[in-house]
Amino acid sequence: MYSIDNDNPINYENVEDALNKFLSALGDKKLASEEIPVADSLGRILYDDIVAQFDLPTHDLAQTDGYAINSADVALADDGNPVCVEIVENTHITKNKIIKLEKNQGIKISSGALLPQNTNAVVSPEFTSVEGNCIKVFKSVISGENVYKKGDDIKQNNVFIRKQRKVRPLDIGGMINLGFKKVKVFKKPVISVMPVGDELLNINEKLEPGKIYETNSYVLRGLIKQLGGISEIMPIVKDNPAMIKTSIEKALKISDVVIISGGSSIGADDFTYEAIKNFKNSKMISNDIAMRPGKHTLLAYIDEKPVIGLSGHPAANVTAFLVFVKSLIVQLAGNPRSFWQEHKDNVRLDAVLEKDVESPLDTDDYIRVRLKKQDNGRITAYPYAGKPSSLSTLVKAHGYVKLPADCTKLYEGDRVEVLLF
Amino acid sequence: MYSIDNDNPINYENVEDALNKFLSALGDKKLASEEIPVADSLGRILYDDIVAQFDLPTHDLAQTDGYAINSADVALADDGNPVCVEIVENTHITKNKIIKLEKNQGIKISSGALLPQNTNAVVSPEFTSVEGNCIKVFKSVISGENVYKKGDDIKQNNVFIRKQRKVRPLDIGGMINLGFKKVKVFKKPVISVMPVGDELLNINEKLEPGKIYETNSYVLRGLIKQLGGISEIMPIVKDNPAMIKTSIEKALKISDVVIISGGSSIGADDFTYEAIKNFKNSKMISNDIAMRPGKHTLLAYIDEKPVIGLSGHPAANVTAFLVFVKSLIVQLAGNPRSFWQEHKDNVRLDAVLEKDVESPLDTDDYIRVRLKKQDNGRITAYPYAGKPSSLSTLVKAHGYVKLPADCTKLYEGDRVEVLLF
Repeated sequence: MYSIDNDNPINYENVEDALNKFLSALGDKKLASEEIPVADSLGRILYDDIVAQFDLPTHDLAQTDGYAINSADVALADDGNPVCVEIVENTHITKNKIIKLEKNQGIKISSGALLPQNTNAVVSPEFTSVEGNCIKVFKSVISGENVYKKGDDIKQNNVFIRKQRKVRPLDIGGMINLGFKKVKVFKKPVISVMPVGDELLNINEKLEPGKIYETNSYVLRGLIKQLGGISEIMPIVKDNPAMIKTSIEKALKISDVVIISGGSSIGADDFTYEAIKNFKNSKMISNDIAMRPGKHTLLAYIDEKPVIGLSGHPAANVTAFLVFVKSLIVQLAGNPRSFWQEHKDNVRLDAVLEKDVESPLDTDDYIRVRLKKQDNGRITAYPYAGKPSSLSTLVKAHGYVKLPADCTKLYEGDRVEVLLF
Repeated sequence: MYSIDNDNPINYENVEDALNKFLSALGDKKLASEEIPVADSLGRILYDDIVAQFDLPTHDLAQTDGYAINSADVALADDGNPVCVEIVENTHITKNKIIKLEKNQGIKISSGALLPQNTNAVVSPEFTSVEGNCIKVFKSVISGENVYKKGDDIKQNNVFIRKQRKVRPLDIGGMINLGFKKVKVFKKPVISVMPVGDELLNINEKLEPGKIYETNSYVLRGLIKQLGGISEIMPIVKDNPAMIKTSIEKALKISDVVIISGGSSIGADDFTYEAIKNFKNSKMISNDIAMRPGKHTLLAYIDEKPVIGLSGHPAANVTAFLVFVKSLIVQLAGNPRSFWQEHKDNVRLDAVLEKDVESPLDTDDYIRVRLKKQDNGRITAYPYAGKPSSLSTLVKAHGYVKLPADCTKLYEGDRVEVLLF
């Protein structure tokens, strides 16, 4: 049941306080690990440091085309006094032959090829001239010149990637490069989503007057997928505390986090609150939160598992998910929130507000905005004053602007930061 | 075979020109469509506009708790002259009953409930007092007051979501809300990836001197997945034009785009170039491109399918993929590159350069950088001068800074824009 209420927000708990209490109650709890093929690890969070098992390159390699020689043999060479070095083979080395040379011998070599034993440098052809089976070398070289040394790229036993990184395509390549076939990652969080409401219909049912298709579970499923979680969508539950309780019991058995979507507005009876209170091991963290939309978000733990009650209003539902559940999942999944990963996971865009917006004092307001690129290249944000029950304004919106508790008004022309949906 | 070359970039083709030629040659070609369940459409590109099949709300609804009445019945009401309206039921309407009232009748109603026939407004209890089975109404109301009108949110036959949007979780909810079970989207592009090189080992083989594990296909597979494509990884092919050609033939049969990874550096013989030239219906678009790394990127069409040769050097490989293949896939998949979607698909971060970097004139340089958040909150970017063959610097890097062709130097302290990997 949807209700449009305009209660005074005073006595509602500040968003930051509620979030901190909610996350602290989780303590150090993290998801367990599992071992999976490196090739399938995209987007997963590394459980352990990745430590190099061998040097890369594994051997000294030529870094340019030229002649592999020993620098000691040409130590006295210069323009006026070239030194002759015997070329030991007609064909040059290109591939993976391991060759051993003697003193004063050299060999033609291609970039990337293994440097022969007893050589330590590659001299470029421009400093040489060929005479029979000898080359004249017209300059001295230092040991290691034009050589890609063993271990130059990665040293054995060094940490190559720190744990808790979210694996990128390049990281997969890096691990394969070091011979890893399997990798330990945090398990994916499993999140049950339970839609609650007498008015809700399954998409396969026929629409009736006064009823609506249940949509929140579809939105939440997508958001959970984007966060790397697994969603378990439960059947729709009626507005009935006993039935909600039974469904929560089932959800707790199969998931790390339980979301109850609907059944928690103050306009209607607060069924979710009642259902959670009836659990022996329940701990209510916060119920009335100073945010708009989403003030009837419910944060609790049952048997030490996080249980979140989201309002059935689509805007409140998604906003509270982004503020509370997203943060929770990030913490559970062991993600250290490196600033650049945080930036990738929360894409923002600066824009100029197209219309004044107001917000009560002491309430965090999350204003849906539609972005537009004007002819002059300027990006503008049009704020929707729409009802929180309106899913269509969310679909038309591209993100939201947050007005923090101490800000009561933003003006047309103000520069705002939009968090993209 | 890897080669480190320092050729003069003069006569190489400008990146933008090469890209434009490559994309123009594709013409209006787009992927075909397929119909899939709305629930599975996350990240897919809409093929058609989504048009509302019915109004939302489907009926007039009460927007607050109160009494549903007809505004005409209380047109003359004010504080001094309240109008009495008969309450027709003891229980109030909360759900989906359709009720019909007569003149001068009202009914108690909850927010969200269906407005009875012959009523057109909801009066708030604060402007009423109850006397027996009547309520006194102390003010006049206008038609539609506190009513959420049929079609207020979404109107039948209006375009709800424009085609070519990349579906977000909220969009799935929006489509379900409108009763859509299936939706037409662009097919996923299928991209074959063919690793080429005598030095390459499969991860299941034992590492030998002078050989390396083949990694580029793993990186490309991840990048393709992030772009919503399907990758077909082909077996490793030797540096042999005839074998490369055979493998390209196979790849063309099963994919929309073919990537040949390796076999196209100038230091080694240019096997890929030779293989492509041997196709009757091949059309070479560009071969030598003024970019670093990636100058030996090869852009071609065979039988009107795009075929891209990427250097085997990991840095060149990924850079040329991001510049050319990513753009191609976006165009093929029908994505209109709305500016906010482009912003989400290419996440950037401003940083301060930690060290001077130089670049030849007329070459686009893509400099890998490692980001760091300093104690003062400032984000710095450390440029890697590493070899293009170094995968480890890519893993340690967080993105790249582009030095366009007309820029030959950036200085320590310069503000740069980093495109995150």
